[in-house]
Amino acid sequence: MNLKKRTIPILFLCSALSAGAQNKTAAKVEALLKKMTLEEKVGQMAQITLDVIGKGKDRFTSYEPFDLDPKELEKALVQYKIGSVLNTSNNRARTTAVWYDIISKIQKTAMTKNKNAIPVLYGIDGIHGETYTAGATMFPQQIGQAATFNRTLIHRGAEISAYETRASSIPWTFSPQLDLGPDPRFPRQQETFGEDPYLAAELGKAMVKGYEGENNEVSNPFRVATSVKHFLGYQSSVSGKDRTPAVISDQALREYHLPPFKAAIDAGAKTIMVNSGLINGVPVHANYNILTKMLKEELGFKGLVVTDWGDIENLYARDHVAKNNKDAVRIAVNAGIDMSMIAYNYEPFCDDLIALVKEGKVKEERINDAVRRILTLKYELNLFEKPTTHPKDYPKFGSPEFEKAAYNTAAESITLLKNTNQILPLAKSSKILVTGPNANSMRTLNGAWTYSWQGEKVEEFAGKYNTILKALQNKAGKENITYVPGVSYKMDGKYYEEYADKMDQAVQAAKDVDVIVLCLGENTYTETPGNLNDLYLSDLQTELAQKLAATGKKIILVLNEGRPRVISKFEKKMAAVLQTYQPGNFGGDALADILFGEVNPSGRLPYTYPQFPNALFTYYHKPSESRSTTEGVYNYDADYNPQYVFGQGLSYTTFRYSALKLSSTTLKKGESLTVSVEVTNTGKVAGKESVLLFSSELVSAPISPDAKRLRAFEKIELKAGESKTLTFTINAAQLSTVNEALESTTQPGAFSIQIADQKANFNYTL
Amino acid sequence: MNLKKRTIPILFLCSALSAGAQNKTAAKVEALLKKMTLEEKVGQMAQITLDVIGKGKDRFTSYEPFDLDPKELEKALVQYKIGSVLNTSNNRARTTAVWYDIISKIQKTAMTKNKNAIPVLYGIDGIHGETYTAGATMFPQQIGQAATFNRTLIHRGAEISAYETRASSIPWTFSPQLDLGPDPRFPRQQETFGEDPYLAAELGKAMVKGYEGENNEVSNPFRVATSVKHFLGYQSSVSGKDRTPAVISDQALREYHLPPFKAAIDAGAKTIMVNSGLINGVPVHANYNILTKMLKEELGFKGLVVTDWGDIENLYARDHVAKNNKDAVRIAVNAGIDMSMIAYNYEPFCDDLIALVKEGKVKEERINDAVRRILTLKYELNLFEKPTTHPKDYPKFGSPEFEKAAYNTAAESITLLKNTNQILPLAKSSKILVTGPNANSMRTLNGAWTYSWQGEKVEEFAGKYNTILKALQNKAGKENITYVPGVSYKMDGKYYEEYADKMDQAVQAAKDVDVIVLCLGENTYTETPGNLNDLYLSDLQTELAQKLAATGKKIILVLNEGRPRVISKFEKKMAAVLQTYQPGNFGGDALADILFGEVNPSGRLPYTYPQFPNALFTYYHKPSESRSTTEGVYNYDADYNPQYVFGQGLSYTTFRYSALKLSSTTLKKGESLTVSVEVTNTGKVAGKESVLLFSSELVSAPISPDAKRLRAFEKIELKAGESKTLTFTINAAQLSTVNEALESTTQPGAFSIQIADQKANFNYTL
Repeated sequence: MNLKKRTIPILFLCSALSAGAQNKTAAKVEALLKKMTLEEKVGQMAQITLDVIGKGKDRFTSYEPFDLDPKELEKALVQYKIGSVLNTSNNRARTTAVWYDIISKIQKTAMTKNKNAIPVLYGIDGIHGETYTAGATMFPQQIGQAATFNRTLIHRGAEISAYETRASSIPWTFSPQLDLGPDPRFPRQQETFGEDPYLAAELGKAMVKGYEGENNEVSNPFRVATSVKHFLGYQSSVSGKDRTPAVISDQALREYHLPPFKAAIDAGAKTIMVNSGLINGVPVHANYNILTKMLKEELGFKGLVVTDWGDIENLYARDHVAKNNKDAVRIAVNAGIDMSMIAYNYEPFCDDLIALVKEGKVKEERINDAVRRILTLKYELNLFEKPTTHPKDYPKFGSPEFEKAAYNTAAESITLLKNTNQILPLAKSSKILVTGPNANSMRTLNGAWTYSWQGEKVEEFAGKYNTILKALQNKAGKENITYVPGVSYKMDGKYYEEYADKMDQAVQAAKDVDVIVLCLGENTYTETPGNLNDLYLSDLQTELAQKLAATGKKIILVLNEGRPRVISKFEKKMAAVLQTYQPGNFGGDALADILFGEVNPSGRLPYTYPQFPNALFTYYHKPSESRSTTEGVYNYDADYNPQYVFGQGLSYTTFRYSALKLSSTTLKKGESLTVSVEVTNTGKVAGKESVLLFSSELVSAPISPDAKRLRAFEKIELKAGESKTLTFTINAAQLSTVNEALESTTQPGAFSIQIADQKANFNYTL
Repeated sequence: MNLKKRTIPILFLCSALSAGAQNKTAAKVEALLKKMTLEEKVGQMAQITLDVIGKGKDRFTSYEPFDLDPKELEKALVQYKIGSVLNTSNNRARTTAVWYDIISKIQKTAMTKNKNAIPVLYGIDGIHGETYTAGATMFPQQIGQAATFNRTLIHRGAEISAYETRASSIPWTFSPQLDLGPDPRFPRQQETFGEDPYLAAELGKAMVKGYEGENNEVSNPFRVATSVKHFLGYQSSVSGKDRTPAVISDQALREYHLPPFKAAIDAGAKTIMVNSGLINGVPVHANYNILTKMLKEELGFKGLVVTDWGDIENLYARDHVAKNNKDAVRIAVNAGIDMSMIAYNYEPFCDDLIALVKEGKVKEERINDAVRRILTLKYELNLFEKPTTHPKDYPKFGSPEFEKAAYNTAAESITLLKNTNQILPLAKSSKILVTGPNANSMRTLNGAWTYSWQGEKVEEFAGKYNTILKALQNKAGKENITYVPGVSYKMDGKYYEEYADKMDQAVQAAKDVDVIVLCLGENTYTETPGNLNDLYLSDLQTELAQKLAATGKKIILVLNEGRPRVISKFEKKMAAVLQTYQPGNFGGDALADILFGEVNPSGRLPYTYPQFPNALFTYYHKPSESRSTTEGVYNYDADYNPQYVFGQGLSYTTFRYSALKLSSTTLKKGESLTVSVEVTNTGKVAGKESVLLFSSELVSAPISPDAKRLRAFEKIELKAGESKTLTFTINAAQLSTVNEALESTTQPGAFSIQIADQKANFNYTL
């Protein structure tokens, strides 16, 4: 067993921003603001992508090797005084040395050729590690991180990614993604913490603190500013497709979608990125109620609000809510946007915004508010003093210590969904057929946002890590492993393109082995290219599974997928099922350790795994979605039928829950209640267990109460035979829901508490 | 050709309710109300199902042959003074003679044993004809009626159904269904007029007038009171399953869901049934804002509001918004419910409501309002004078004249979706293989609500009509037709249960014929039993289609289904595709006439036919759902990919559209614009054509405008070579949309008008 969690401390300077420091920064910002022309201010609000200032035939691509184009650099940073640059060129990861070179030159231009010497704010889509830096440590995608139910691991991962982002001379990462992930169709579910608002809030908070530090001390050169995204209600579109309309009631927006963002804002997150979609017909980038009234006024967010890619342009080119670019800029800036991720054509944004201010259509005070937020962050990041961090100051970049942390998270994420007759763990002497399109791919282990946007360049950068096949060979010896792909992805095609690759040979090979490790799932995608039309796992992979099952050999199904693709056409024939999500560069090693019992699996599903493409639910559905049979001629029962429920996750040991106790059967307003439960490891090996506490409101009006809701969780480790009593303290606020008047309240009445198979009721009274 | 529409007039007495008559009724109601005890009033608000008062072992079933139980009758109608009874016993159609007998006895008990002699209001689920009367004329389900785009046919069908309902001694039908049908997953899409609000509003109005008469003269014994249902937002649940939560913004509720109901209310519909589901978490039966503020106050609805089956009980037993039955009754009655379709256990409703009034928790004025509405309808229906109508007064019941009307509607509903190389019409001398589970079934032609709830008793009652097979044999001679089912439905199982039934023989038989008529689709269902998990057409039917296609023979795919099941796994291999929907008892004949060219098809799809189970759209989606490729590295194009678009519908002739003209390029507020277009039949046979006028708003803020919207339509008939110029008058109100403040308005700006391939723009100015 290799379950011990190692936390290797890195020395960070604790430089909490005291009130005094804040006042000092504010004074600097105001002083600078006063010196700035309107043109300079507008430039600060503009963000372009790196290709725009690279040498190349157009703005969309650059020559390789990459080089900055002095003319374009001068035009963007000096003539237009652009304040921010993002991402990489040619959609390709760069070494820390290259990053240092590029960003140093950018800062030099910005700070020496402009009178006010304002540094550029460089931002990057670092999603599960520093996406665009070669050699950076790749963690599981957020959905796998969620499956660990382990706040410490998430915090540590963010801390490491912050270090490696700064090692790449970049002080700002567009992470974490705190969108609720309730929709298995959505092409970015893998980038969320899953379907539960509380889980996302808790892990989001841990991640923000991991990136920014306990006191959000982002001047510390080992910390970065986060960009919590995508505010608000992204990943809930009606069609399930990216950047399409969502319908969300004001109540649901606050009940389910807001809590993770609120937690991150309360945790001090420095910036927020806006939802590219539409809610109830209105593009969020045009929504004053959401961006200004809710975010800046009600939630008191003091940081910087940045658009997503091209989203001001989208207001006229896509959504037809604006007549032209100028109209779109007016709407978005007045709605509360501080910085536009223009990407390519920055001149119209700047020219139009300047004109709008001169015409009085955008008030200069709105511009000052935006620029104040931008400059504040630049000061907080200490960019005026130290515009570029140097790789040499980051010796732990890509170190074994960091790699071990990524391994630990992967190991705790992998989720054992089924294990018939304890077929797992396997003996190392087993003869194994390894097959399936995900068996020998670093790309699919990582997913998108790995060295490139869609993940298509992973193999080029991740050669030194182990695929599932390689890891199994390392563990059990090559002589025990037969590998035939059976099905392969078309690696230069769309994510869903695949072909039969020696399928008959794979089926033939099954006859000579003890067990089959069948690695199915998806190739990599994110955003619009990842849209799907059919949630079933592909026909070819289904065919492979069915043909292998027909051999009568036991099959261990290893899923490696960004979202839960439907497997009900063959799931019953699988002896064991493991969900690896997209576990990163150490997922193959972690999986091998689990398959052979060196690690005891402890992941839990952070979403409801559907059994059918048109039967999608969340665990916190309303009672009408899971009601039982009714009497009489018209029977209105429901068919709540997930393949695996939220929180599903087996272990190689067994845990018994007992003695659930409440300190009282009544919870009074302003007081709290103690819930205790004993958990015993009744099996033969040590194991980790995430203990989940759910509550249900028995009656609530007029909004039908959710079936149940996660209210607390704690992950513990128990040796074989060991018992532990866990105690949770519950107050009314934790049980609150948002009412029709959009207030967070707890209605007096009966509640039920559930932990595993233990239940107890109490009454809440005012 | 047999395209001539025959309208056979029936003599109806025009007895419009003048203001004088209304005042007289009101005076009678008030006088009666004054005499009534609280117990009598509450009894009027209660509705039970027939089995409750039938002899039988319990309330859920009755002995056959059916007989009323005098003890139960006395208890319900005299002791509890129940005011309304619905539907049939044992879920089985009855003859008009049996209906007369049952209802006469009910009325006799109610009117002789109670001092105030108030007749019972009998209601019935007459969905596409009088469901529960043997021998009644069965029209296509509403979705097929919508495909005709022919207001006259719909009006005539309702007129006939009203006649036949009264012939069954019943004065009240729970029809039409004016729910928007935007969701192909929903198990009642077949009962709607499809996805378009305007089409549903226009046809709903025609249907209400057909049932109730031009002046809603329901005292006329050939007219019935309608119950427009299900107010509001039913059939839009998030999961696609019946009676589960919907999420609909207030704006969308008014923009899409309200117009058909508003049109019906404005057309004088007498009663309204409430949505059994939840909107934004709140059960509609508990929603004061919808039932009282919107329906009764804002829309000024003066009629009776009835619950759906058991829906007050559902407030506690299903939705947990009430503590117990009493709490549920309080909430529902205070929300605005006038009558509870209790169904079985009426005592708690009556006892609890009486207690609530005595306790002051329901005001007596609320009770009076409800009872006033109920009594008014009973007077308007002339039930006090003539509580029962007699079958002998209805000589045209089930007559050839009525059957021809049903045939006409079926013939205009059938929609030709594909006709490669004009394979259709077929020569009568063709050798044809008829196959598929829908080829020889009267049940599937009719769908649910035909002689029983789920349609399972159709074969018992519809023996004299022609299945598709029989109709083809009648047309082309038995010697030309080979029939092998290939796949059959398990007729005593769930709607989705089926089995291979001589599939190999079917494939074998294909070799000896010229063409295959492959009849696929669904068995019958409605409501919860019709929920689906997978929108793909079943695996077995797909297999049959693919094996037949592999023979190389040309296949005419005939779809007979309540909702558009996905056929993309084999659609490309079909030579022709026809959608018959559920065309009723004359669907087989109509289809045969179309296949052999005796009728030229003229139906148009009233919904968007999806190509994939997780790619569901409406034609009036937002632009972001169908945007084209964008430039640069991050491409956010959309994949709008229906199998067939809304309005799709081919003919055996061709129509050319030309000379679209606007009377002005500017529409001023308060004025109107004339749109003219020339349509020419450029083919060789006469044909009918539904001309659809769509508008698009080019820019609108802050709500992104719909891609396009149907604003007018007209069905015309053109001889070969004939031309006709159609003129539509458009004013601002017709182009209006609901804004964020929930007002119906038209924003000044550019609009586009589209009719077929013709387009023109104009500006709307204030």
